[in-house]
Amino acid sequence: MSEQDILGAIRFDAAGLVPAVAQQHDTGEVLMLAWMNREAVLETLSTRRVCYFSRSRRALWRKGESSGQLQHLKELRLDCDGDTLLLLVDQEGVACHTGRRNCFFRAARDGELVEIAAPLVSPETLYGGHADH
Amino acid sequence: MSEQDILGAIRFDAAGLVPAVAQQHDTGEVLMLAWMNREAVLETLSTRRVCYFSRSRRALWRKGESSGQLQHLKELRLDCDGDTLLLLVDQEGVACHTGRRNCFFRAARDGELVEIAAPLVSPETLYGGHADH
Repeated sequence: MSEQDILGAIRFDAAGLVPAVAQQHDTGEVLMLAWMNREAVLETLSTRRVCYFSRSRRALWRKGESSGQLQHLKELRLDCDGDTLLLLVDQEGVACHTGRRNCFFRAARDGELVEIAAPLVSPETLYGGHADH
Repeated sequence: MSEQDILGAIRFDAAGLVPAVAQQHDTGEVLMLAWMNREAVLETLSTRRVCYFSRSRRALWRKGESSGQLQHLKELRLDCDGDTLLLLVDQEGVACHTGRRNCFFRAARDGELVEIAAPLVSPETLYGGHADH
């Protein structure tokens, strides 16, 4: 199975992880960055649903498992030196655990951090009161 | 100077670094991912030219310094938990040291890695024979 070839081209770091940038495939919106280990890459390629590795929980993190906000993989790309992944995805709902469409809602403008997007849904609605991505 | 407030909101890792995703501001193309330390963030904000920290060279990496392919900062954004930066930039020429517009030119398709973009310029032209980003 040639997914091993793809895995072989990825340069995981000393902790066995690689950063993965998720981008909405049709609009180009950068949604989030998270981390993957080998198992997460394999699962993502085989199920076409994005699965990360949660560094805080030290466990696979099937995006949307608790929130329902799934990421469907359109294409996985690898950068020139193999140490970053770009995931073109179709994001259901919102990518950010704060209820915003993407995680990059704070912009440095005139020396200050300005919130440039409001939540589309409350975290309580997403998670029913328990904190998780 | 309130750039310190912006720095204070960034969660640098144990090595004092934070990943930064560079995106072409008008087309949405994800160009590359590299790393910044505090000094690189400050220099980028003050000069509006993107400066990374090279993990291999352990030194500030003023993007385009040797290749001429500068990245002009349009906006710096911070993600929800402060551990990733998104840089909206205007890229002169090509972002990738291979001479491609962006670094993510290998796509996993049908279980194989396929090159989906060709170099626009040769690395020799960019660097005159010495390897660098």
